[in-house]
This record gives sequence, structure tokens and C-alpha cells, in this order.
Amino acid sequence: TYTASALAFALRNLPVPVILVGSQRSSDRPSSDSVLNMKTSLAIFKEAPFGEVVVCMHGTISDDYVLAHRGVKVRKMHSSRRDAFQSINDAPLARVDFPGMRFKMLNPRFIARGRREDFQVVSKFSDRVVLLKFYPGMECGIIDFLVDRGYRAIVFEGTGLGHIRNACVDSVARATEEGVLTIVTTQTIFGRVNMNVYSTGRRLLKAGAIPGHDILSEVAYVKLSWMLGSYPGLDRKDYVELFHRNIAYEYNPIHKDSLFPVWSHEY
Amino acid sequence: TYTASALAFALRNLPVPVILVGSQRSSDRPSSDSVLNMKTSLAIFKEAPFGEVVVCMHGTISDDYVLAHRGVKVRKMHSSRRDAFQSINDAPLARVDFPGMRFKMLNPRFIARGRREDFQVVSKFSDRVVLLKFYPGMECGIIDFLVDRGYRAIVFEGTGLGHIRNACVDSVARATEEGVLTIVTTQTIFGRVNMNVYSTGRRLLKAGAIPGHDILSEVAYVKLSWMLGSYPGLDRKDYVELFHRNIAYEYNPIHKDSLFPVWSHEY
Repeated sequence: TYTASALAFALRNLPVPVILVGSQRSSDRPSSDSVLNMKTSLAIFKEAPFGEVVVCMHGTISDDYVLAHRGVKVRKMHSSRRDAFQSINDAPLARVDFPGMRFKMLNPRFIARGRREDFQVVSKFSDRVVLLKFYPGMECGIIDFLVDRGYRAIVFEGTGLGHIRNACVDSVARATEEGVLTIVTTQTIFGRVNMNVYSTGRRLLKAGAIPGHDILSEVAYVKLSWMLGSYPGLDRKDYVELFHRNIAYEYNPIHKDSLFPVWSHEY
Repeated sequence: TYTASALAFALRNLPVPVILVGSQRSSDRPSSDSVLNMKTSLAIFKEAPFGEVVVCMHGTISDDYVLAHRGVKVRKMHSSRRDAFQSINDAPLARVDFPGMRFKMLNPRFIARGRREDFQVVSKFSDRVVLLKFYPGMECGIIDFLVDRGYRAIVFEGTGLGHIRNACVDSVARATEEGVLTIVTTQTIFGRVNMNVYSTGRRLLKAGAIPGHDILSEVAYVKLSWMLGSYPGLDRKDYVELFHRNIAYEYNPIHKDSLFPVWSHEY
């Protein structure tokens, strides 16, 4: 996710898809998935209409097909399965069957291949961004420590609809005063934050916290690092606008029910 | 997860199930799921053979059935859906159909109701534990800051099989020397850590990092807080043994394929 989304923000108007491919079993093992993932990637490179950064990995634990996941919407969801990489809050862009090598688009929303002369690299990243998973009992002093340490943006992976504890609202307000951007995402992974439902959320908004909508916390971290590095010296207002602008489809305004996976309730 | 697992560790030899119930829509709205969740909980209280802490919530977005998830294996996986709460790396304990109120056990592994006279409350929790989600670029100085600040345990939510960056191994070794326990879980959520596969994992083990197997990072945080609070002054060796001892089925040695949800690859 980190690598893919860094590339997705840095490489503008791509004339070809950029494909990250790997394997869950080492390539020196007979059961490796590396060859299939690599072979199908070539089909994607040739046939895909999109100019996006994608991650190509097994779609199932068998050798049935490979999926091209949008780099800013993919997450490793299992420590070891072949189909560990999955799209979150968005459909994969495309699929290639094996062994037939049939290419099929799955997602109607994509960035088309650009003209070669429009291709651009915008690749400065700031190291003054931090990602914090919030938990009950988190000491608010950690926020003050980070502000004092010169960090310029903090991504809070909040609970549920986007909350951190009430007691920390003052530290968030202080961060805002010092010019530090604070973003709130959700650690439920699926769904989106809504900070208007509960009073804690509304207090956080008032203290300057910026809602992350349905962006993955990892992608929010990378985007802020890219924004602060590549567009230094903007006003807070412009940073907020840029953070909420859909650069690489890191936001999906419409979540169909099929985007939440189906859970087996038998054992 | 935090509340449920704190109760699961604190309440020993439960003579009855302890049920946490809630709703995803406020009870003042006609579409609220509160009544159904509450009604089915009573059936679980009456019929369940287990004496465990469970979370009872809708199993689907319709009013079909409610699931009793084991408190130490449940996670909120969606910010707003009725079926947001789901079991991770384990099957839900039981299900109650609606409106039939038929009770059905789903999981053969459970802690039976205990005798009333054996019931015990072990409920001291330490606030000197911290949960850190690792990300590329995390400053290792944060670890040193936490050790200096007097924290006695750090849970790292690591990447993939349980990794944090090589550069931070020295800070982990220093934490171990200072008597701080460092646990590594995986942020893939599903699956388990295996720190013997790659050299970074092996270096972390050598520096004293303790593998979290398939425990959820949130539960590891609560368990350490409970261990340090309720059993103060143990040796490192005894803390490691206690952390790896299955107190409330927070570990599941066998992951069936059905525990990873099914992802729709059509949109």
C-alpha cells in the first residue's frame, strides 16, 4: 500500500499502467505464485485501458485468476494467503483468468492512459508526517511530543466513525494552532468516517481535525507526506482542499454493499 | 474489542455468559437494530453452554440473525453497517435466528459455564502499555521516548508476517534491556505472525521481541495491561509464558480457510 500509493501520487498522467507484482511463496519453491502473477501482469500491461499504479496478485488461493488492485485502495489483509491483497472500499480494476489469459475490466471508474508528453513526476515526500493508531488510554502527551518534535501532519486512525478520546481534543487544537494538520481515518478499514454524528467528532472538527472520508489510513499518511514534500508552503486551506481532492481515486464516493466481504458464519 | 477483552481477562470462571450488546442505529430511530440485538441476547443468556464474554450484534444487514462473537476475537470491521462486528481468525460462538429465536452453536471451542463458587474477578490494569502501528518511515526515536517515559510494554502492529524496520531493532533491544516487553502482531488482521521467515523477523526475535501469533493487536494491548496490572513483579520469562498462555481463547491454533471472508470481485 505504502509503495503503491507513493507511486500513484508521484507519477502523474501515466501513459501506461505501472504494475507492482510479487509472490506470497518464494520463487525458489515449486508452489510459488510468482510466475503466474508475473505472466498475467504482462496481459494487463498490454490490454488495460488505464494509466494507474496497480498491485497484481492472486485473486483466490488457487491459480484461477489474478486481480489488478488500484494501488491507493489495496491492503494486505492476510499475513500469508496467496489472495492476501484485496481492494478496500473499491472494486479491483481488472482481472486476468488463468490459463486462458482473458482480460476483463471490473471497475468502470479508472484514469485512462495519458499522452506520453503529459507524463510528469512529482516525487518529493516529507518525513514530517506520522501515523498514529488511536486506542482507549492513549496518552494525549504523545500528540504534544510530536508537535514539539516538528511533525507537520498527524494521521489518527480513529475508532468507528472517526473518534479519538475527548481528553485529547485540546492537544489537537494546539496542533492546529501550531500549523500541524491532523487527519482522522477509521480503523474499521471498511466504510467511511462521519464526524458529525457524535459530539466527540464535532468537537474534533472544531479543534481543526480533518475528516479522511473513506481513504485508507496508510494512504492518508503517504498523501500528506507527498503534499507537504511536493507542494511546500501552502496555506492550511489549500492543504485541506488538496487533501480532499481525488488525485488517484483514493476516495470512492459510492460504496456498494458488495464492497464489504461476505463472512462465513459456519465453521 | 477493548471493553470485551478487558472483561474477558478480568472475569474468571464465569457461571454465565457476559453479553455486550449495542446498536448501529440509535434506539430513537424506527430502523434501529437495538431491540433485535437485545432480544436475541436474552436467548443466548438462557441457552448458551458457554461462560464467556461475547458481543452480540446483527450477522447481516437484514434482521435475519444475531451472532455472539467471542470478545477477544471480535473486531469492528465497518464504520456503519449493522453487521460491522465480525469474528477474526475464529468462528462466532453462536447464532440466534430471528424471528424464530432458534439458538445454534457455531464453534466447538468454548469455555463452559463455571461453578458459581469458582467465579473470580482479576481486574487491575496497568496504564504503562502502548499500542503502536508500525509504518515505513516510523522514527525509531518514538520507541526510546516511550521507554524513557516509563512504559513497560509496547505492542507493535507490524507489517505482513510481523516486521518493523531493521533500523529500529536496536531500540527494541534497548527496550528489552530496560525490562520493557515488546510484542509484535500483524496489521493484516487476518492470519498470524511468523518472525522466522525473514532475517528482519529473526533479528527482532534476537532483540527480545515476542511474537503475538494470531492475537489481535487490540487484544494484545489489553492482555499486557491486565498482566502487568494484576500480576505485578513477575520475571520476564513468566510474563512471556503468561502472554502466550491461552486465557480466553485469544489464540486460535487452527485457521480454517472459511475464517478469511469471501471478497466479491465483481462490482
